[in-house]
Amino acid sequence: MSGRLLFWGSGSIPCWKPMLVLAEKGIDYESKQISFSEKGHKGPEVMAINPRGQVPTFKDGETVICESNAICFWLESMYSKQGTELIPSDPKEKAKVLQKAFESAENMQTKAMQGVLYYYMKTKEEDRKEETIKENLDNCRNELTVWDKYLGECGHDFVAGKQFTLADIFFFPFLAWAWRMSLDFNKFPNIKKYFESVKERPSVKATWPPHWNEGEAQPEKMAYLKSL
Amino acid sequence: MSGRLLFWGSGSIPCWKPMLVLAEKGIDYESKQISFSEKGHKGPEVMAINPRGQVPTFKDGETVICESNAICFWLESMYSKQGTELIPSDPKEKAKVLQKAFESAENMQTKAMQGVLYYYMKTKEEDRKEETIKENLDNCRNELTVWDKYLGECGHDFVAGKQFTLADIFFFPFLAWAWRMSLDFNKFPNIKKYFESVKERPSVKATWPPHWNEGEAQPEKMAYLKSL
Repeated sequence: MSGRLLFWGSGSIPCWKPMLVLAEKGIDYESKQISFSEKGHKGPEVMAINPRGQVPTFKDGETVICESNAICFWLESMYSKQGTELIPSDPKEKAKVLQKAFESAENMQTKAMQGVLYYYMKTKEEDRKEETIKENLDNCRNELTVWDKYLGECGHDFVAGKQFTLADIFFFPFLAWAWRMSLDFNKFPNIKKYFESVKERPSVKATWPPHWNEGEAQPEKMAYLKSL
Repeated sequence: MSGRLLFWGSGSIPCWKPMLVLAEKGIDYESKQISFSEKGHKGPEVMAINPRGQVPTFKDGETVICESNAICFWLESMYSKQGTELIPSDPKEKAKVLQKAFESAENMQTKAMQGVLYYYMKTKEEDRKEETIKENLDNCRNELTVWDKYLGECGHDFVAGKQFTLADIFFFPFLAWAWRMSLDFNKFPNIKKYFESVKERPSVKATWPPHWNEGEAQPEKMAYLKSL
C-alpha cells in the first residue's frame, strides 16, 4: 500500500498530466479508472473527497488534490529528487520550463484546441456559424505553426530544452488529442518529429489512454479537424 | 537599476497577479504601463521580447517570462525567502494553496467569469440567446456560492488558510473585477467580508488598477452582472 490513490478517466487530458508526472518520477500509486459514460466521476468514492465530482482526484495519505496543475506542481515539489527532474533548479532553465508550460496551457489548450472542440460540442448544428468555425480553425492552425517554429528553432528534442520537463507534460497530451482527432501532422514537420519521438517514451506508453487503442474517434469529430 | 522590468496594462487580471507577487515580496522593478487602447502591448518594446504582443511581459536580467502564472511561480521560487511566503513549505499547506490557486483559476476565471464576459464580448447582440445568458449567469452564481461557502467554513481570513498566499493572488483579482462590474456582494456575505478586508492590504492598494479610480465601468457591462 503506497497510501497514494488516483481516480482518472481514459482520454482526459487533465488526468493524463499528473499520470505522466507519476510515471516519470516512478511514484507508486493505486490507480482507479472511472468510466465517464457511467458517470464514475460523480460516484460516491470520488464525491466523498472531491465534491465537484471531477477527475483527476488524487490522494496522498490525508492530502487531497483535485486540480491537474496543482497535482503536478505538488508532486514535483514533494518528490523533486526522484526520477525525472521536471522543473530544473537553474533560474534561466526554470523560467523557460514555466513559460512554455503555461504558454502551452493558455494557448494550445484554452485558445486553440478548446476553441475548436467546445464550439463543436456546445453549439447545436443549426446554430454553428461558418465564419466562427473558420476563425476557430485558423486560430488553431496559427497556434500549431507557432509551436512548430519553436521546435524547429530550438534545435533540441523537447519543448523547453534538451530534457523532458513539465513543459512537455503540459504540451504533449494536446498534440496526442489532435492526432486522435486525425490532425494531419505532415503540415507541421517539427511537431511531427517531436510527437513521434515522445510517444515512444516509456511514461507516455504506460499512460496512453486505453480506449484510444480500442477504436477510432467518432468520425464526425475527426472530419472537423481534418481541414487543418 | 534593479534589472527587472514589467510591462503591464491597467485592469488586466493576468498583469495584476505578478504585480501582487512583486509587491508582497517587496521586489524592486521598473514599471512600464502600456495603454491597451493605444495598442501599447503590440508596440516595439514589448514585441522585441514577446512576439505574441501581450502583457504581462516581464524581464529579469536576460530572463524573459510572459505568462502570468509562470511569472508568479518563478518569482516565488527565486525570491522564496523575501517578503510574504506565497507557497508554504509544509506539504499539507502547500497542497491546499496549490489546490485553491488552480481551482480558482479553472473555475472562477475560466468557467464563471470568462463565461459571462466572453459570451457578452464575442457574441453579437442579435445572436445572444436568453438561455445561454441564463446558463452563464447560473454557472457564475453557483461558483460564487461555492467560494462563499469555503470562506465561511474555513473560519480564517484567507482562501487557503490563515496566511495570504498564492491562492489569494489567483482569487482576489476576479472578485475585484466582479465588484468593478457591479456584482452585489451582499448576496455572498463571506466573500463580501473577505473582499473588504483584502482590498485594504498594502500590496492590493499599491497595485489597484489605476483607471478604476477614474470612473465607473461601462454601464451596459454593469447591467449584465447585476442580475446575479
